[in-house]
Amino acid sequence: MNDTSRIKHTSLAARVMPAGQAASLIHDGMVVGASGFTRSGDSKAVLAAFAQKAENDHTRITLMTGASLGQGTDGALATAGAIAMRLPFQSDPVMRTIINEGKLAYIDENLSETAAHIRNGFLPPIDIAIVEAASVEADGSIVPTTSVGNSAIFVQQARQVIVEINQAVPVEIQGIHDVFLPEDPTGRAILPITDVWQRIGQDVITCDPQKIAAIVFTNQKDSPAETTSGNAAAEAIAGHLLQFFNREIAVGRLTPALRPIQAGIGKIADAVLGGLAQGDFQHLTMYSEVLQDSTFQLMDSGKMDFASGSSMTLSTECYQRVFADFENYRHKIVLRPQDITNAAEVIQRLGIIAINTALECDIYGNVNSSHIAGSQIVNGIGGSADFAQNSYLSIFVTESVTKGGKISRIVPMVTHVDHSEHDVDVIVTEQGLADLRGLSPRQKAETILEHCVHPDYHEELSGYFERACRRGGHTPHLLEEAFRLHTSLAETGSMKTPLLASI
Amino acid sequence: MNDTSRIKHTSLAARVMPAGQAASLIHDGMVVGASGFTRSGDSKAVLAAFAQKAENDHTRITLMTGASLGQGTDGALATAGAIAMRLPFQSDPVMRTIINEGKLAYIDENLSETAAHIRNGFLPPIDIAIVEAASVEADGSIVPTTSVGNSAIFVQQARQVIVEINQAVPVEIQGIHDVFLPEDPTGRAILPITDVWQRIGQDVITCDPQKIAAIVFTNQKDSPAETTSGNAAAEAIAGHLLQFFNREIAVGRLTPALRPIQAGIGKIADAVLGGLAQGDFQHLTMYSEVLQDSTFQLMDSGKMDFASGSSMTLSTECYQRVFADFENYRHKIVLRPQDITNAAEVIQRLGIIAINTALECDIYGNVNSSHIAGSQIVNGIGGSADFAQNSYLSIFVTESVTKGGKISRIVPMVTHVDHSEHDVDVIVTEQGLADLRGLSPRQKAETILEHCVHPDYHEELSGYFERACRRGGHTPHLLEEAFRLHTSLAETGSMKTPLLASI
Repeated sequence: MNDTSRIKHTSLAARVMPAGQAASLIHDGMVVGASGFTRSGDSKAVLAAFAQKAENDHTRITLMTGASLGQGTDGALATAGAIAMRLPFQSDPVMRTIINEGKLAYIDENLSETAAHIRNGFLPPIDIAIVEAASVEADGSIVPTTSVGNSAIFVQQARQVIVEINQAVPVEIQGIHDVFLPEDPTGRAILPITDVWQRIGQDVITCDPQKIAAIVFTNQKDSPAETTSGNAAAEAIAGHLLQFFNREIAVGRLTPALRPIQAGIGKIADAVLGGLAQGDFQHLTMYSEVLQDSTFQLMDSGKMDFASGSSMTLSTECYQRVFADFENYRHKIVLRPQDITNAAEVIQRLGIIAINTALECDIYGNVNSSHIAGSQIVNGIGGSADFAQNSYLSIFVTESVTKGGKISRIVPMVTHVDHSEHDVDVIVTEQGLADLRGLSPRQKAETILEHCVHPDYHEELSGYFERACRRGGHTPHLLEEAFRLHTSLAETGSMKTPLLASI
Repeated sequence: MNDTSRIKHTSLAARVMPAGQAASLIHDGMVVGASGFTRSGDSKAVLAAFAQKAENDHTRITLMTGASLGQGTDGALATAGAIAMRLPFQSDPVMRTIINEGKLAYIDENLSETAAHIRNGFLPPIDIAIVEAASVEADGSIVPTTSVGNSAIFVQQARQVIVEINQAVPVEIQGIHDVFLPEDPTGRAILPITDVWQRIGQDVITCDPQKIAAIVFTNQKDSPAETTSGNAAAEAIAGHLLQFFNREIAVGRLTPALRPIQAGIGKIADAVLGGLAQGDFQHLTMYSEVLQDSTFQLMDSGKMDFASGSSMTLSTECYQRVFADFENYRHKIVLRPQDITNAAEVIQRLGIIAINTALECDIYGNVNSSHIAGSQIVNGIGGSADFAQNSYLSIFVTESVTKGGKISRIVPMVTHVDHSEHDVDVIVTEQGLADLRGLSPRQKAETILEHCVHPDYHEELSGYFERACRRGGHTPHLLEEAFRLHTSLAETGSMKTPLLASI
């Protein structure tokens, strides 16, 4: 049953249609901007219908979103050959494979930048926006659901808009969004956020009702967050980081409220946020991209006062709990466009503590977040650089080894740099924490070697550093063997071989 | 003759002393914050006297500045062994050698960040500030000279202040500075600059007169800017870039006023700015670090309305011309602290066009600005990342080859990443211009190979790219030969050898 009371604009009810019919509005070569951020608030029906259509008629489009989509949509689209260009982020295993095969052009962008690139005309103009909504207001304005992402800029710039009204999302969600479009004729407006809870915009996405070409009803929850069970390494990393926060409080650089926290997704970040619930912290806040289960657990424990993000990506259990008692949470959260959550200006002003996961780090503190062996992309840079570059404290966490010890995540030189040493203040592994603030490159190497490296790789890495120092330089390297661990891994299946070979 | 009328605070005249006596205030282990940015407005006497003292008594200090110093001061200090730690930038050939030998710890920092790192307690507290001044006001406030740099934060945070009153600088310089300290109890204040000419602070550096421990008179001009004579390659690069600007105007993305320009130092930037004087541009503005000869040439030609920077670094001829007719220029320029000139928030808001020089670029658009062979530092990252990350357009310029063709500045993989491909929009060599906006990594490689690479290296680089693509990946690389050009250079003195070897 379509709840047409969710369409408050009288004449728009006539534009309700099945998803397949709406998908037929999408033609070959078009540029589509779709809602969705970390698998939340994404198109459930029209993109899926378009994937089917494309499989038959070989239509190919450019697809922009907020960030990753759920429902296997990106995989279905990629398999159907429906995507010529994809940006700014994806995390689908099928699409990833096709990207790495060179069959799909992917622009892995800083998540803060897409809206500006669209406004500046650096990306092609948007033909159609597809936006999941809780309802459509009397003036055509759209009430988003569990994410905002880039939806506002897509709706503003698109010639046509397809709205998916998702009846699985309670209409009570209205009011948690704060939509602000920062464009301005001579550049960008001041983003006047000086506190995490501050609202600067509207709770809807303004939309000319004449642009709304189709309304499709759905009734399907977001793909749930994968619940990660922490392991001993994640717990150890969290422990080191909490000790570090306590030391910073002791010397007066932080208070028990810390600073607003940004945290990436995954078991280590979960363990860190879980640990905050145990310690003597209070009045915590988040200014992050994704509100996760741990955000609401911290609220429930009375430790967290407020959280700002661009999406809510929750487990099935947490989703039910939050919406069952939504009046208890609605004044503690806000969802904003991703060019506001990730704005350099706001991140610097609020003095964020950014906690992100590294794929590999090198002995000088450079971080690779995105590429295996410098070549194969995993997901993308996401918002990590937006936060690492502008935060008060930029923290990267990673286990020191993976694949049963065959891969060291600390290497002589990272094979791809997403974050240069200038943007990395602290590196934490289960071995320990390296505080890199106020150190020169050689001092950083000594600290990382002492605190972060797995014992199995200590001799190899400190040997590299010592030999490189003998050759000299501000950041001593031996280019002919900087990637020796990686080439050994490719040849033998383990990074451990070169050490054995050199003994 | 000391012009004591430059000391308007009555009791401070008693603190006038010779440079050697002032230098004796600096003790072993102290942290000194000294004025000076791009060799302008630096200490002429006290640091030189301290170098002499340190040679005798083995005193070693941490020295922070705005950016590079003139007068050979950094070299003298390094030779004397007077520096344990140096930050955030230097460009002295003697000091560079000692840094690369590992004998001097150097923190090569983004120029925007030092002030915040001091405020946040990430760097050790400052014992003594040494600041060049045109005069000292009745309340102790300091009128800076040809740079502002980090002087305001140094004076604010230091326990003691040494003022060098430079009588070679006309007192009429007062009024061109705009000093704003953005700290705030809960983070950082909004930086309310919405136009390049906007003033948000005071024209002096506030200073408690009781902190002024010494006043030293000097009478010595800044080290003059090296006048660079353009070559054919620089002219060609400028030509490609001016054509690009004209195309951007033609499609409506820019106007003849362009956007506020930031330009690095050197013959290519000079040639570009010189070229702007020839074209149909008008009402140009700068929001840059250094006001150079070309800035004033553009003003003289009627093309430039206003320029904001942190220093004026001019040739002897231009310096004389500007100060001989200062009333003509004073309302067209402003000098600000470097955390304001380089603030992400202001750079994004104004929509800067940033033009910086690359040491090497790779085929995917990553840029190395600082390290030879990944190891030996040249100067440092300076402000290039502040601008590249936050600009409207981030442009890097470089000649395609150097050392008579023995070194290609376009390589398969850069040996050090200062700017990731996310922060590089356009690369220009004398061969042509690669517009990387809206492209995936493989598309970027094709564009750079087509437009920027020197013909002598085209086969080598396109061969690498093709073979890497066959192996696959989003950003295809062959780690075992990614640095083959560099290792060949180290072994044979030329990057050309591997191509010949593989034929």
